[in-house]
Amino acid sequence: MARAGTLIESVMKDIESKIASRAYLPNTRLPSVRAQAKAMQVSISTVVEAYDRLVAEGCIVSRPGAGFYTSGPIAPLNLTHIGPKVAREIDPLWVSRESLESTAGSLMPGCGWLPSEWFYQSGIKRALRNLARTHSLDLTEYAPPKGSQAFRHFLQRRMLSHNIEVSAEQIMLTESGTHAIDLIGRFLLSPGDTVLVDDPCYFNFHALLKAHRVKIIGIPYTPSGPDLERFAQAIKDHNPRLYLTNSGVHNPTGAHLAPHVAHKLLTLAQASELVIVEDDIFADLETIRSPRLAALDGLDQVIEIGSFSKTVSASIRCGYIAAKQDWIEQLVDLKIATSFSGNRFDSEIVLQTLTDSGYRKHMEKLHHWLAKQRQSTTKKLINLGIQPWIQPKDGMFLWCQLPTGKNATQLARDCLSKGVVLAPGNVFSQSLNAHDYLRFNVAQCTDEKIFEVLAWALDQQI
Amino acid sequence: MARAGTLIESVMKDIESKIASRAYLPNTRLPSVRAQAKAMQVSISTVVEAYDRLVAEGCIVSRPGAGFYTSGPIAPLNLTHIGPKVAREIDPLWVSRESLESTAGSLMPGCGWLPSEWFYQSGIKRALRNLARTHSLDLTEYAPPKGSQAFRHFLQRRMLSHNIEVSAEQIMLTESGTHAIDLIGRFLLSPGDTVLVDDPCYFNFHALLKAHRVKIIGIPYTPSGPDLERFAQAIKDHNPRLYLTNSGVHNPTGAHLAPHVAHKLLTLAQASELVIVEDDIFADLETIRSPRLAALDGLDQVIEIGSFSKTVSASIRCGYIAAKQDWIEQLVDLKIATSFSGNRFDSEIVLQTLTDSGYRKHMEKLHHWLAKQRQSTTKKLINLGIQPWIQPKDGMFLWCQLPTGKNATQLARDCLSKGVVLAPGNVFSQSLNAHDYLRFNVAQCTDEKIFEVLAWALDQQI
Repeated sequence: MARAGTLIESVMKDIESKIASRAYLPNTRLPSVRAQAKAMQVSISTVVEAYDRLVAEGCIVSRPGAGFYTSGPIAPLNLTHIGPKVAREIDPLWVSRESLESTAGSLMPGCGWLPSEWFYQSGIKRALRNLARTHSLDLTEYAPPKGSQAFRHFLQRRMLSHNIEVSAEQIMLTESGTHAIDLIGRFLLSPGDTVLVDDPCYFNFHALLKAHRVKIIGIPYTPSGPDLERFAQAIKDHNPRLYLTNSGVHNPTGAHLAPHVAHKLLTLAQASELVIVEDDIFADLETIRSPRLAALDGLDQVIEIGSFSKTVSASIRCGYIAAKQDWIEQLVDLKIATSFSGNRFDSEIVLQTLTDSGYRKHMEKLHHWLAKQRQSTTKKLINLGIQPWIQPKDGMFLWCQLPTGKNATQLARDCLSKGVVLAPGNVFSQSLNAHDYLRFNVAQCTDEKIFEVLAWALDQQI
Repeated sequence: MARAGTLIESVMKDIESKIASRAYLPNTRLPSVRAQAKAMQVSISTVVEAYDRLVAEGCIVSRPGAGFYTSGPIAPLNLTHIGPKVAREIDPLWVSRESLESTAGSLMPGCGWLPSEWFYQSGIKRALRNLARTHSLDLTEYAPPKGSQAFRHFLQRRMLSHNIEVSAEQIMLTESGTHAIDLIGRFLLSPGDTVLVDDPCYFNFHALLKAHRVKIIGIPYTPSGPDLERFAQAIKDHNPRLYLTNSGVHNPTGAHLAPHVAHKLLTLAQASELVIVEDDIFADLETIRSPRLAALDGLDQVIEIGSFSKTVSASIRCGYIAAKQDWIEQLVDLKIATSFSGNRFDSEIVLQTLTDSGYRKHMEKLHHWLAKQRQSTTKKLINLGIQPWIQPKDGMFLWCQLPTGKNATQLARDCLSKGVVLAPGNVFSQSLNAHDYLRFNVAQCTDEKIFEVLAWALDQQI
């Protein structure tokens, strides 16, 4: 009896969690008792009893002659209920909140952005003073639907210099890079669709895609791009709708897409009508240019997005989408409907900063600082037995493997207790196979205390 | 045969449009041939033939033994395909784009915001100069997950002064008011849910809710709030999930929610677990305070949202959500996932402007200007035979009825040809029964040319 009770409860729990995560939408027919029993590998009587109890709880309803239905309205969407259950320490949202909430005293070698003093603050301040001097519509008026025309022309020239053929009318400004991806998701995805990401990839891609209730498939990332065999197999097995990637400096590995991989990848995508979203957020940190899928494809199946949160400001928000014309027109409607037309003011400051004569010089200095920091951080990590997966040419990230037997999640927990916020590998990994990896941001590794705490925490693990 | 052909095509077209609007989600089972035939009132053989042709077109697939399924991936989401087909001139998205795109020369008595010179630009400029002088994290760093603590404390005090009991931890900043409503929609709504709005209501509510693929029911709005009988009936008939409204100065009517209506409304909502989203965007334009549902309810089933785009700046973006604690925590996760954590910079400028000693004085002047403009615009409109529905106590809007037999959509089309952008009533009306109404923004009615063009356009209609 105890066993039967447990089984019924576990079936109930499974169904409840499918309702909470909206795998079962409200007012939707549940699988028949027979199908459910088969799917869950339990007896029919177990499912009958579970359904009956769920009806008693008001969680589902029985419609005579039509079967069982989820009730509506349902519980609010809870992102932490979607997808496989993971420890809070490797939950992408937890890592984001921990980094964003951290107080002045804490050290953040795991965070994804530059320290504020590495940004071109004098350029931003000049732009602010300019705006404060003029009688300017930029201070109070809504933006035109696609965003500032001057900014779109700037982006057009910038993309042309990367060999991406695009007109200014094919570009729409957004509130941020994340907002850009989110709009594309709302435009192209439906719940249940499949999306490919790199494994590892930027961890917020997981949280963002969860909010779209899609199935996420991770493609192992190699030092020259995604594993092409696995990519082809995933297309065959899952008929995915989207592939979301960084072509430039890859997050978290610092790798670059090799030209021959780019070409084959695009050929595979074109054969299957897979849309590629290429996030070019790290463009200005690149020292040697890697190919852009958007350039090879001519913005047909590839959508280019980007922002300036890594190079101008994470606080003054401005992102963009470049795509084929009819998609952009529909994305404009979607943007107006869901966020009206913002960012006139922020985009003006970002544009003035980007076109300030000092910006290029500041970027050269930044490249130099980062190169120095990559070198010194690598050395200190190797001294602790922590090995970079590759030695990146540019960017701020080092993707590193711990000594044999050490666990990154435990390490992150221990270091957090000493005020050091790390980014454990499994946060970036859809398959959760990066348990002995960490991502380091070399720009945030200037304090010696980080390495002392790391050494201490490594010693805690036998 | 011709008739059968036409019927089959119309069945195909109907199914295709349901797929385009995502009434049928991808990879989802279609109704059985028998059920479809019954629903569409056609013969079974017509449906069999339509399904077969749709299979041939690749639009749907047949799974032996399991029925017909929509294929995935599907066409992108197109907002203009969702809901009843309306003329572009009364499509909310068209009116938004027309107003946002308008060039310097055009007059915009239909637009929903103040002219730039009516804003407190000197306060904004002072805030900019302040920020340009300090070594400030606000220039480059991400915001904490809930947004600036100082701003949340300011909002807490502000809400307490409206008798809304709230802690700063129950408040989250957003990119804008529209963004706030959008996040709540993603949190609480699933496709197919029902949402109540006022009829008429702010037109972008329609566009926003379309993007959530919900069923929208309009409740007739009276000079003291929504019609309570119709509200009760709609709850009974449709079991709605949300009701979205302005309690303060109502858009587009300028009416106020009366206390007795607020109380009854809340009693009805509480009896049925209906969540109310109260948009308080016009708070600072109110001269006599109307009750807030959030105050009566204690932020249990009511969610309060707002922004400063009508009083500080539409370009410097900042909105907020106040709700019960556990909802806010989940909304923070959803915000980080879908837009990361922005608006630190903009919220700092808005906060400095709001707390600048000159802001209150500017608002007093603004109230005075608006009162004068309401009076003079009313007089000029009445001279043309255009009658305000009520004489609002405050705010910028006049909801006006045209002389008998005149059509607002036609009038808007004619005036547009002369460079005057109007807002025809049916844009605001879910039931499309406001064909002889227009919304005027008195702050945008200072140019005599508007009334000359109106007189001319009225004469065009016999």
